[in-house]
Amino acid sequence: MKENDYLQFMQDAKAIIDKSLEDLYPDNSTDLTICAARYSLLSGGKRIRPLLMLASSSMLNVAEADVIPFACAIEMIHTYSLIHDDLPCMDNDVLRRGVPTCHVKYSEVIALLAGDALLNSAYELLFEHCLRGDIGRLEAARFISRASGINGMIGGQSIDIASDRKSITKEILYDMHNKKTGALIEASIMTPLFLSADTKDFSSVEHALNSFSKHLGLSFQIKDDLLDLLPIGNDLGKSAGKDEAFNKCTFVTIFGKEKAKELFDEEMFLTASAMDDLEKMGYNVFLLRRITQYLREREK
Amino acid sequence: MKENDYLQFMQDAKAIIDKSLEDLYPDNSTDLTICAARYSLLSGGKRIRPLLMLASSSMLNVAEADVIPFACAIEMIHTYSLIHDDLPCMDNDVLRRGVPTCHVKYSEVIALLAGDALLNSAYELLFEHCLRGDIGRLEAARFISRASGINGMIGGQSIDIASDRKSITKEILYDMHNKKTGALIEASIMTPLFLSADTKDFSSVEHALNSFSKHLGLSFQIKDDLLDLLPIGNDLGKSAGKDEAFNKCTFVTIFGKEKAKELFDEEMFLTASAMDDLEKMGYNVFLLRRITQYLREREK
Repeated sequence: MKENDYLQFMQDAKAIIDKSLEDLYPDNSTDLTICAARYSLLSGGKRIRPLLMLASSSMLNVAEADVIPFACAIEMIHTYSLIHDDLPCMDNDVLRRGVPTCHVKYSEVIALLAGDALLNSAYELLFEHCLRGDIGRLEAARFISRASGINGMIGGQSIDIASDRKSITKEILYDMHNKKTGALIEASIMTPLFLSADTKDFSSVEHALNSFSKHLGLSFQIKDDLLDLLPIGNDLGKSAGKDEAFNKCTFVTIFGKEKAKELFDEEMFLTASAMDDLEKMGYNVFLLRRITQYLREREK
Repeated sequence: MKENDYLQFMQDAKAIIDKSLEDLYPDNSTDLTICAARYSLLSGGKRIRPLLMLASSSMLNVAEADVIPFACAIEMIHTYSLIHDDLPCMDNDVLRRGVPTCHVKYSEVIALLAGDALLNSAYELLFEHCLRGDIGRLEAARFISRASGINGMIGGQSIDIASDRKSITKEILYDMHNKKTGALIEASIMTPLFLSADTKDFSSVEHALNSFSKHLGLSFQIKDDLLDLLPIGNDLGKSAGKDEAFNKCTFVTIFGKEKAKELFDEEMFLTASAMDDLEKMGYNVFLLRRITQYLREREK
């Protein structure tokens, strides 16, 4: 595989995800909750989780039709979490991806319902998809549901709230980020494994993918915290410098900017090691490696 | 079956549901989101939906172990919807079942997350249960997920918000109540049908149960609206008279108190007709009939 293959993959994958999400929330409803869900779902997300899932699928030879509903479900779950995170009682954010947040555009009560609707829709889609497949789909769906719940993403948000304006240990910070950001990234990368028919050695692939996804999740979060330090008026698409101003627990507020960079380098090294593990198993990890590089170099 | 059998059933069913829910959210966490979810889940709900599901299961000879996780999931979904409904941006209620609402007790942000957690937990539980059963469980889970979503309960809430302080037609009111309250009641009654191995004629049972549950859902909602008219200080456990004071669309505000009673009688007649249909098919509908009577006569 070459750079052009990667660019083509990114373009095609993003297009198919955007199209699939548009089909799930078509522009033919007057119901405000549906309009609000659609607004947030289609307002320019980078689709990082679906891209990782499709790259992992490509590596494991899983058919696109098998995996697309999972990719859409994860993106819907991710989007609901952003809508609820942005609400006044949580982060009170007014900008997201360069446009007004859901509650600013549609009211707080509609944003609350739109988030609920997206979470529920994700599971409606997964049950539908599971009914037309084998047990691997159910195992993947269970993995995603756990990653999204109180022992995954919601658990991470809860730790985040409990840590607000407090000094926390590195262990708690890592636990928070592993759950809040890492769990869905891990689920994205792991899902294709449950759908794959040709994994030569399930447990060793599982171990390597798991290790890779945990390291990627952490380095992604460190990068996100570093990007938050950029001056207001940048191209981040959200209110920048806010984490520091509000004394939120991030890698940067805990360790300082320089230390965070060090950590980032450390995590990237570990990510690379995990990818080497994959390569040793005879899979083509070009896409996952290239996306990791893209995430490391992103400027928003 | 006799009256004593009914009383025993109600006592046993409520005990097993309460115990199962307690086991799902044990009292051993310091996480505030888990504590808040447990608080709302175990604060004295009547367990109407689980009771209906277990009565329907008993009629259709479905094993208790098969159906309990579905009953718990529905109660968790019902509870999340109450927590989010009570939030300041929605109904801004301070009392629920005679105790402070979740956000009053735990803060708005924790109540938001506790609702999210309960909804997600319901689906984690269902995927887990589906993995250890046949396709009937998946069909039941899909039915519940649809009943809870934008074409069911959330859709009804969205109509409710859109209708706030407006004059709406009887058709819209019925559509709203069918979705907002009826959908989960219908799912509770229908779930055992997907789990039953011995239904003599699936489509005729499906038709009759469906008809029964739709009528029960509407009459339940009318009764709820009538109970809301009771003077403040009653035993309703929530802030009474509030729907009228806030000009919310209910059967009572649309049709007036006397008309609502008429409607209630009419709906109860139709419910009885649906139950007669069941009896003709040779099932023992004693429990469902008795619970319907209990719901009609309840005073809170």
